[in-house]
This record gives sequence, structure tokens and C-alpha cells, in this order.
Amino acid sequence: MTRTAIRLADGRELIYFDERPGAARDAVDRRPLPAPPPAAQLRLDPLVDEWVAIAAHRQTRTFLPPTETCPLCPSTAEFASEIPARDYDVVVFENQFPSFSDRVAPDEVTSITELTPVRPAIGHAEVVCFTSDHNASFASLPPTRVRTVVDALADRTEDLSARPGVAQVFPFENRGVEIGVTLHHPHGQIYAFPVVPPRTRLMLRAATRHAERTNGRNLFADVLAAEHSAKVRVVGGNEHWTAYVPAAARWPFEVHLAPHRRVPDIPALRPDERAAFGPLYLDLLRRFDALFGRPMPYIAAWHQAVVGAGRDLGYLHLQLFSIRRAADKLKFLAGSESAMGFFINDVVPEQAAQALRDAG
Amino acid sequence: MTRTAIRLADGRELIYFDERPGAARDAVDRRPLPAPPPAAQLRLDPLVDEWVAIAAHRQTRTFLPPTETCPLCPSTAEFASEIPARDYDVVVFENQFPSFSDRVAPDEVTSITELTPVRPAIGHAEVVCFTSDHNASFASLPPTRVRTVVDALADRTEDLSARPGVAQVFPFENRGVEIGVTLHHPHGQIYAFPVVPPRTRLMLRAATRHAERTNGRNLFADVLAAEHSAKVRVVGGNEHWTAYVPAAARWPFEVHLAPHRRVPDIPALRPDERAAFGPLYLDLLRRFDALFGRPMPYIAAWHQAVVGAGRDLGYLHLQLFSIRRAADKLKFLAGSESAMGFFINDVVPEQAAQALRDAG
Repeated sequence: MTRTAIRLADGRELIYFDERPGAARDAVDRRPLPAPPPAAQLRLDPLVDEWVAIAAHRQTRTFLPPTETCPLCPSTAEFASEIPARDYDVVVFENQFPSFSDRVAPDEVTSITELTPVRPAIGHAEVVCFTSDHNASFASLPPTRVRTVVDALADRTEDLSARPGVAQVFPFENRGVEIGVTLHHPHGQIYAFPVVPPRTRLMLRAATRHAERTNGRNLFADVLAAEHSAKVRVVGGNEHWTAYVPAAARWPFEVHLAPHRRVPDIPALRPDERAAFGPLYLDLLRRFDALFGRPMPYIAAWHQAVVGAGRDLGYLHLQLFSIRRAADKLKFLAGSESAMGFFINDVVPEQAAQALRDAG
Repeated sequence: MTRTAIRLADGRELIYFDERPGAARDAVDRRPLPAPPPAAQLRLDPLVDEWVAIAAHRQTRTFLPPTETCPLCPSTAEFASEIPARDYDVVVFENQFPSFSDRVAPDEVTSITELTPVRPAIGHAEVVCFTSDHNASFASLPPTRVRTVVDALADRTEDLSARPGVAQVFPFENRGVEIGVTLHHPHGQIYAFPVVPPRTRLMLRAATRHAERTNGRNLFADVLAAEHSAKVRVVGGNEHWTAYVPAAARWPFEVHLAPHRRVPDIPALRPDERAAFGPLYLDLLRRFDALFGRPMPYIAAWHQAVVGAGRDLGYLHLQLFSIRRAADKLKFLAGSESAMGFFINDVVPEQAAQALRDAG
């Protein structure tokens, strides 16, 4: 893999990850771009003790543009996109409308009420383009390209984890307008969170208790072993990875993909583990699309170890889930889920696993 | 208010709450209904230590039926709905497709893996019809009807709280297909949860810590006092209630309505407090609809004190929020929110409050 970092017209970093050396990477971004917006704001919700990011500049972000002006396609003679080159394999760059950034505004509000601490949402938000083909999808990529994406995520995780104040690096893909995608071009995102996110905090708490109860055993490793034994929710696997529907899945179709060897994050995966991921994940994504004979809206979320305290409790895994509960019905997060956090899942996990095995 | 309880053909309870005595309430439900489904299942997600309800029978629930076969309209000569009478004011009945019920299946699965405890989802799920007018909305109700609804919710909260195993009673309304409503007829729901829901658990934890730090002060009362002082996020109010956008709102438009007197739940509200709620809430709902000149999809969630340990920490309030972030755009819970619990709000709370004040 050949890595080439450049700067966009407004100073944001862009990195080409090329599968072969020699690609022309000297194209210059000459767009008259405004300065990147200042960092969003974090406010503590005192009622639940959780930080919320207030990112007003995101209201104006690009919303489902026509293909000719897709900001994630390579630039052409007619249109200068976010990517100056005429072609690329995988490219990563700082989000123009970042939820987190290190550009702190000078007029940052520092007090709301004494019960609501405020701080700048320092962190990072990057965009990962998986392919220059606007009409592709992750499921249509060849395994070699998945490997390049994984290597790029490893690169970004290592880099971002080392920056000041980063608590956790979170690579993810939102796919489908049904879950709010605002750009059709196949892409993912990477957030570098400045505080440990609520779900990770819960996972650390549960893992800590489990370790205390079991003389130091790892909770996720024990869950994976239990799913291996139970078999009934396993959807697929190979020498290095297993994919299964979690026993208490909260989404209609949810699969966890975990490496057999416990590693904290993507950079810690060996080359053979990275190579084995693609074929299994691609098979799974195609099963997702085959379930209802139409592209499945999904969220694919990499759970990596935190950077600081609690890092030893982490176990890398990918959480893949869809809100589609039937061919023509979506699962909505309404009163019970959105106001109370109590999930009601209409699909029995064992039946979801069976449906995914049958969808091959 | 006149209260009349009957049984539907399958044994479910239905209660008429009438504003005037003398209405005919002797209509009998003669539909050939199947037996109500057995209780759903609760499974503990060991990774985050949260219970998830698996309710397979809800997959077949009634989905956006045509008006002529609306199950929430009064029965007619042509169609027998869920409500046997030819008219009603407010009616409450057990949900035919309940997320929680006390009908435990004999073949209840009792073990999944040793890390995933399972129990029946014992509890209650009721439907509240606000009006017999199919085309009305809560915002269009007269204040006297809101008062009847509040009295009905008080009745149900008192009754359900006294039943075995109920941890918290949660009345709510989902409004709009954008958030997944499957019946257009104006209605709400009441869940009686068998375990303390995740968000309430966080609220209890935060309230406990606040009380420890402040020699016993109530967290919610202090937040309300702080918002009163700050003024900038207050949207409206009267002698007994204040409505404000929380400082760390996680939804584009979110308002908390709280009584000035600290009470644990709706039954504890005095008549004058109940009477004062309707005009303020109706004004707020109309402002919601006026914001973008179209009906706002929203969730209205009553947070009441838990029934057991922690009850003394509760402070009744209504959380009203919408996922609409612009006239033609919705806030979706994608990777950051759904996988990590980290909310990114594109609308600044102070600006949301101003917009709501201006929408009068």
C-alpha cells in the first residue's frame, strides 16, 4: 500500500491509500473554500451524566447532491470535488462539516448553567471513500479492496489515537437513506471522540464487573466462546473470525464479527487476520442484501479499545445492524427506545441467524 | 369523570373515561378474537448489562390500516373495532400486540447461554385513545379533554404501579409516520416496565450522585431552578408549570415540561396543577406544528418516579421532542447515536427555544 498525504485548499488533510505505487498524486485543490468551521461544543446533560455534541454548522452540510456534483467522486475537468485526483483506490480526509475537530473557536462559550459544564468538542471527524465508483457499494468491493480499507482504518486509528485528548477512535459506515445517509457515494466515517461514548462506558462497566467476578476473564471473549458453543446464532466464520447474532440483539438484524484472537483494535490485527476479514464480511453484507431482495440499510460500527483507562478491557469487534424488520417495514426508535433506552426487538435472534444462513 | 371498565372478547380490559355520566357503555365485543399472545421475552445483553425485550408477535401488528378499519375508532354497524361503543371521550385498553404482558407462556425459554439470563417480559402495555375523531391530533383537543387524558393517565399509573413486578409506569405518545407510528388515530401508550429502563437507571445514578454532593438536593429541581434563572431556554410557562429546552438537548427540538412543585408522578398532581397543564402543553404542541408549517413528528414521554428503590429521587416531567431538524430534513440516529450512544445535535438549544417562542 502506498500512502500519500496532501492538504486541501482549506488546510484539511487528505490521504490517498493506493494499492499500487506510481499513481499521480500531485493534483492540487484550487477551490475557493471557506475556512473550516470551529469545533462544535460539548455540553454535559446533567440528568443522565452524558456529553452531547452541539454542532450547528452541520445543519448546512451537503444533502443528497446530484451525481455530477458528488463531493466524494474524483475531480473531473468540469467539477472539483473533495478529492483533487482523477482516480483513487481508498481516500481519507477531514470532514468539511465535522462533529469533532481541533479548531477551537476563540469565542467558545464556557458556561451555560452551573449544572451544565461546556467544553469544545475537540476531536476528529474523517471521511473514508471506499472506491471511486459512485454506484458501487461496500458489498460489491473485491476482497483486496476491503483489505486496503482495513489497512487505511488501521493507519487512521494509530494516528488519531496518538493525538492529544482522543478517548476512542470509531470507524463506521452508515448505508442507505433509510438511516439518514446524506451522500450516496460508498463511504464510511471515522470519529475520534474526546470523551468515552455512553455505550462504551456501559461496556467498560460490564467488562470490569465480569473481570472482578471471574478472576480477570474478558467478558467479550467469554461471550464469543459461549456463542461458539451454542452454535444456533452463528451465521458464518473462518479460521480467524466468527460472525454471530448476539443473543440479546436489539436490532431486527444484528451481527457481531469478532476475531478469534483478542486484540484491542484494528492496528493490532495481523496480516493473515486482516486478509481473512474481507471474504467473511462481504459474504455477510451480500446476505443482508439478499434477505429482502433489496439493498439493506445498515450501520457497521467498529468497537475498538479506548485509548486510556480501560484499554486492557477492550476486544475489537464489528457490530453490523439494520433497521429493516420486514421487506417493507423499518424498525423505528420511538418512545420506548428513544425516551427510555428500552429496546423492543420484533425479530427473534435465533430466527434472524437462520434467515441470514438461508439467504446465502 | 365517569370510569367504566369492561372486558373485550379475548379477555383484555378496556376502560371508558367519560367526561359526562350517562353514556351507553353496555356494548359487547363479539369479535372472534384469538387468545392474546404470551408475554414477550426479556434477555440480558451482557455487553452493556441492559435488558432487551424480544417480542416476535409484534411483527404481525396492524400496520397503517385504512380509515374504515381503524381499530381505534368507535365501532360502527359495518366494522367492529377495539372499542365496542359507538362513541367515546377517552378510552384505555390492553394492547393486542403487547411488548409487555402478564400472560406467561408455559414453554418459556429459560436459558440461552450462561451469560444471557432470560425472563418473561412481565408487565403491561396499554393503548390510550385521546378522542374518537380519527382525523384529530392531540394539539387539536380542547383543554378539558387534555384534563381527562391526564386523569386517565393518573388512574392507569396508580393501578399499574400497584401490580406485582412493575418497576416504572411510562405513558407516552408517538406522533407521525416519520417516527414509526403504525396507526394514524390520535393515541398514546402506557408501558409498565418490569425492570428499570436504561435511561431511568442513568437518571437515578446522576440524581443519587447529586444528592450526595449537595446534602440531599434534588437534581431535577436544581436543573429547573437553573433554567428559570437563565431564562434564555424557557419557552413558556404558567403558575404551575414551566416549559424549557434543556441546555444539553440531544434532539433538534426538545422541550421539558415540569411542574413547579416536586411530585413523583401524575397521580400526585393536584387538580389545579392538572388543569394548568393542558393550556401550556397545547400551546407548545401548536408551536411545534407551526415551526415548519406542517405537522411535527414527535415523541412525548412522561418520566415518572420508579415504583421501588429510588422513588424518592423522582421528579415528574414530560419530555417532548422531535426528530425534524429542518422543513425537509429529519435527524436520524446513525452510527454515532445508535452504535455508540453519542448524540450530535445540529440545532443549538438556545436557538431552538427562540424559534419556539417566535412560532407563537
